[in-house]
Amino acid sequence: MEKHISKQNGLKTSNKKVRNIVHILFALVLTSLILASLSPVQSSWDRLWSRKPSKKNVIFFVTDGMGPASLSLTRSFRQFTQNLTRDDILVLDHHLVGSSRTMSSSSLITDSAAGATAFSCALKSYNGAIGVDPEKQPCGTVLEAAKLQGYLTGLVVTTRITDATPAAFSSHVDYRFQEDLIAQQQLGDYPLGRMVDLIIGGGRTHFYSDQDAVYGSRGSRADGRNLIKEAVADGWSYVGNRKEFDSLDQGHNVSLPLLALLADYDIPFDLDREDSEYPSLEEEAMTAINALSEATKDSDKGFFLLVEGSRIDHAGHQNDPAAQVREVLAFDKAFEAVLKYAEDSDVETILISTSDHETGGLVTAKQVSKAYPEYVWYPQVLSDAHHSGEFLSKELLEFKGDNKSEFIEKAIFEQYLGISDYTEKDTNELLKLTSTGEINDKLNGMISTRARVGWTTHGHSAVDVNIYAYANRQKTWYNIIDHLQGNHENTEIGQFMADYLELDLEKVTQMIKKTKHSPNVGVRVSATLDMDEYHRGIYN
Amino acid sequence: MEKHISKQNGLKTSNKKVRNIVHILFALVLTSLILASLSPVQSSWDRLWSRKPSKKNVIFFVTDGMGPASLSLTRSFRQFTQNLTRDDILVLDHHLVGSSRTMSSSSLITDSAAGATAFSCALKSYNGAIGVDPEKQPCGTVLEAAKLQGYLTGLVVTTRITDATPAAFSSHVDYRFQEDLIAQQQLGDYPLGRMVDLIIGGGRTHFYSDQDAVYGSRGSRADGRNLIKEAVADGWSYVGNRKEFDSLDQGHNVSLPLLALLADYDIPFDLDREDSEYPSLEEEAMTAINALSEATKDSDKGFFLLVEGSRIDHAGHQNDPAAQVREVLAFDKAFEAVLKYAEDSDVETILISTSDHETGGLVTAKQVSKAYPEYVWYPQVLSDAHHSGEFLSKELLEFKGDNKSEFIEKAIFEQYLGISDYTEKDTNELLKLTSTGEINDKLNGMISTRARVGWTTHGHSAVDVNIYAYANRQKTWYNIIDHLQGNHENTEIGQFMADYLELDLEKVTQMIKKTKHSPNVGVRVSATLDMDEYHRGIYN
Repeated sequence: MEKHISKQNGLKTSNKKVRNIVHILFALVLTSLILASLSPVQSSWDRLWSRKPSKKNVIFFVTDGMGPASLSLTRSFRQFTQNLTRDDILVLDHHLVGSSRTMSSSSLITDSAAGATAFSCALKSYNGAIGVDPEKQPCGTVLEAAKLQGYLTGLVVTTRITDATPAAFSSHVDYRFQEDLIAQQQLGDYPLGRMVDLIIGGGRTHFYSDQDAVYGSRGSRADGRNLIKEAVADGWSYVGNRKEFDSLDQGHNVSLPLLALLADYDIPFDLDREDSEYPSLEEEAMTAINALSEATKDSDKGFFLLVEGSRIDHAGHQNDPAAQVREVLAFDKAFEAVLKYAEDSDVETILISTSDHETGGLVTAKQVSKAYPEYVWYPQVLSDAHHSGEFLSKELLEFKGDNKSEFIEKAIFEQYLGISDYTEKDTNELLKLTSTGEINDKLNGMISTRARVGWTTHGHSAVDVNIYAYANRQKTWYNIIDHLQGNHENTEIGQFMADYLELDLEKVTQMIKKTKHSPNVGVRVSATLDMDEYHRGIYN
Repeated sequence: MEKHISKQNGLKTSNKKVRNIVHILFALVLTSLILASLSPVQSSWDRLWSRKPSKKNVIFFVTDGMGPASLSLTRSFRQFTQNLTRDDILVLDHHLVGSSRTMSSSSLITDSAAGATAFSCALKSYNGAIGVDPEKQPCGTVLEAAKLQGYLTGLVVTTRITDATPAAFSSHVDYRFQEDLIAQQQLGDYPLGRMVDLIIGGGRTHFYSDQDAVYGSRGSRADGRNLIKEAVADGWSYVGNRKEFDSLDQGHNVSLPLLALLADYDIPFDLDREDSEYPSLEEEAMTAINALSEATKDSDKGFFLLVEGSRIDHAGHQNDPAAQVREVLAFDKAFEAVLKYAEDSDVETILISTSDHETGGLVTAKQVSKAYPEYVWYPQVLSDAHHSGEFLSKELLEFKGDNKSEFIEKAIFEQYLGISDYTEKDTNELLKLTSTGEINDKLNGMISTRARVGWTTHGHSAVDVNIYAYANRQKTWYNIIDHLQGNHENTEIGQFMADYLELDLEKVTQMIKKTKHSPNVGVRVSATLDMDEYHRGIYN
């Protein structure tokens, strides 16, 4: 009996020990879990932790051509025009996490095609490459892999939807100028079939030919096809102007797949944009967000959306600082609206925003004489300008009146650009110029010099660009800090998105080997050719 | 008896409960401590946690005039010249944490004086201000407050020690050109007495007058005083050349306070520096680190050290890309050596590195004709250049031989700059030029154009500059991430250092009210004047 009692006591003691051990283990487990969820260095834990199935949205923003100087230029412009303190910074500024190195496989200075392919395929390729590797083999993209995993996908831009950035996520061609072929693939005409659920942007011209008149203009397809009609027959809903866009009710009345082509080429600069004719980038982005959000409401998968501030790059190419600050502000507003959506969303959502490269060699300082420069630049000059050089050069070339000098001085200089200290030499120079590019340079130069804003090129530069990010889950935020805080190659941004969504890009690459990607005709291949092709409208 | 037993049992049960509660509490406390030490958002916890007395070193690096483009320029230059992969980045690149906004209280574009005062006093002041607020009242600096708390202090630069950056930490004058007065204060001639324990740099000229010849040259003090003699009489050890510097045995044989003035004005660009005549920035910095480290060995307080890559700014002002990449590389080596020291140190040590502003409007791209530019820049052009424009313009102006054309072509173009495709026009132009500034511009322009490196000004620009940081304690690292990750005003960097060292800058401000800080004579006051004064040697 004593033995029994003693045994019982022994058991009780054991039980107590077990309980103590359980308590200690509990403490350790709790500690470990907190460690895992909080510590940026515990990335493997973090990934394990996030491996439980969870619905996710990824919204990837590209500020095409926006380098570091664009930020300080636009921030000070906004503070000046809205009479804000120096602490009242851009929404983007609050979300800076790191910077991205941008060289391509073929040059220290990338173009937008190689830059976008670094994001979409997470690999370095050559300037001009659209979703293909350095050996010109199609590479699986984050958008395609996400779609194949059950996510919905979208592309929102303000330039041609067939331009480099959106193209590199949704097509595979050897050279960026193959925009007719890019359009076909974007609508599903390649081995994977339709991968894009929503398209909003410009670039209608590559979806129809000169045999069709759409909204009073003509397309540029060489093959005579009308992809818009074909898409509608395939079940796409099509939207082609502001009125039709408004019928989408900010995305609450959308039938996917959606093809919204709102301009033959680019949507006008935000500085020139008539709100009655074209939506803002914010409206485009929120229409996409609402449509994709509602369409994935009952799914266990979310969406992948690309939103591009496309024409920051164009303002850079044209060396137009007045247009550029408005493009960056329009982007910042779009980012702010999407941020608010993510903050309120029940779905785990991340925003990543970066640039493919800097454009124009923009500097917030310009020496205008041999005298040592004062340390100033003048935001007011930019706020006094009410139209872009692009808009005004078109106006000037199309002027049919009697008194062109008066038009130049009273309308262009004084009324549109807010410049009163012009000279007769300026007027005479403009009277002689006949090309868009030269008139652009003259007008934008007058603004830049007065604002003391400098540029060193009409092309791109190699400076690192910023990375911004946000997550509405703390654990995911630390995952971002772990992988994107600091200085990174642009390919690491693409790889992060692939890893975060647990995508297998290589598997997709195997599926798209038979994609037609070479140009139909023999082409002279050089970076210069590609760029000249691309900018033929601007620098002809 | 039963009652007793029952009571005992009750007590036992209570004891068990207590033990369980203790275990749970232990788990909670452990959890809280881990939370407090790991979570960047728990900053108040973190500060509490760090309030226990601990020995700390702060090493603050300033890359004067280094903007974002300098990094990509130098990184690619290093990869090209050393045949490295694109992943082999600068040491600095590994430590990027954020970016800094740089405007001063008087302009969107700061000068180095206001920029350094933002770091030293944690407040915005006007261009030209050295350790004074916008009302020209002396403001307590991080260096002074640290010294008053028992830390040792040091200043290491490659320009004049009386130049803006070191001056703003160790003196208080209305205008940066008051360098004679700055020198006096740096040696202790002001209400606080001697606050600096170690000085290594150039700028000897403001420590003696033209009545004294030191090392074959003459000083520029207007008052006839010889501060070097006075300092030695006051107990400073003095070092005035490479040989004497070497006797310091890399800092292991230093008697503090140390005044090491190694050049009348600037130490030559690293590209021109003769190792037998001048130490590198790395040698200067490590000599300081070792001296301060040994001198604080038995103290419960560490040291505050400023290390400046001063002449990155000068290469920017002169638009000399070949000199600039070598200046940035020399800085990166100094940073690497100090980083290694910190990694191995038993003392809690942080490194913070940032710039006061960008200089030159440097862009890693330059359009050189009307044709659309190729996306390239050529590091080889910079590696072929073996001397700076500053060095060569001096050589040219001092040339006494018969055949100046041959000297220009064979020596300057071919031998020193590695340029073989010069033209007769280039030679003739140089034959006519008589000022350092113009010759500089010509030679540096020839290099920049060939390398496709652009500049927009000889002054400063407003782009955000990078913030880099390192801590050898994880808790402190999260403190840095909490306060300096992302986009910040430059004043926040100064405030972080003050908070980290638990300094009361306001208290110091009260103690220095009676500092003489106005210039002796009436001066015309404008930013331009200050800048012209400053650069009179370069752009006269």
